[in-house]
Amino acid sequence: MKQATLQVEGMSCNHCVNSIEKAIKELGAEGKVNLSGKTVTVDYDESKLTIETIKEAIEDQGYDVV
Amino acid sequence: MKQATLQVEGMSCNHCVNSIEKAIKELGAEGKVNLSGKTVTVDYDESKLTIETIKEAIEDQGYDVV
Repeated sequence: MKQATLQVEGMSCNHCVNSIEKAIKELGAEGKVNLSGKTVTVDYDESKLTIETIKEAIEDQGYDVV
Repeated sequence: MKQATLQVEGMSCNHCVNSIEKAIKELGAEGKVNLSGKTVTVDYDESKLTIETIKEAIEDQGYDVV
């Protein structure tokens, strides 16, 4: 398992937190959003998933990964 | 039909817009959120609904009606 922390812009409320964490869960990983820190920390299995796929899932929800 | 505009704090994104407009629709009224203006304009039938009920529905979604 690998952990990565991404800087993400545009997350503003608990609905945003839910939509991002749900999108990451659907990939089979675990995401934790820190709203005030504007970060998403992700635990994922490197053999199954790349960080690029996770970034795309977050961007697909309408947020910018810096 | 009556129209009222409420000042609402805490609305920050399109998820907030959706949750408020949906809650108002479930009461049988029509709500329109203006995010930058921090307002919700509601068209409702005074014979069926009071503005207090609408305010409560917005507050139940986690927002403050000023």
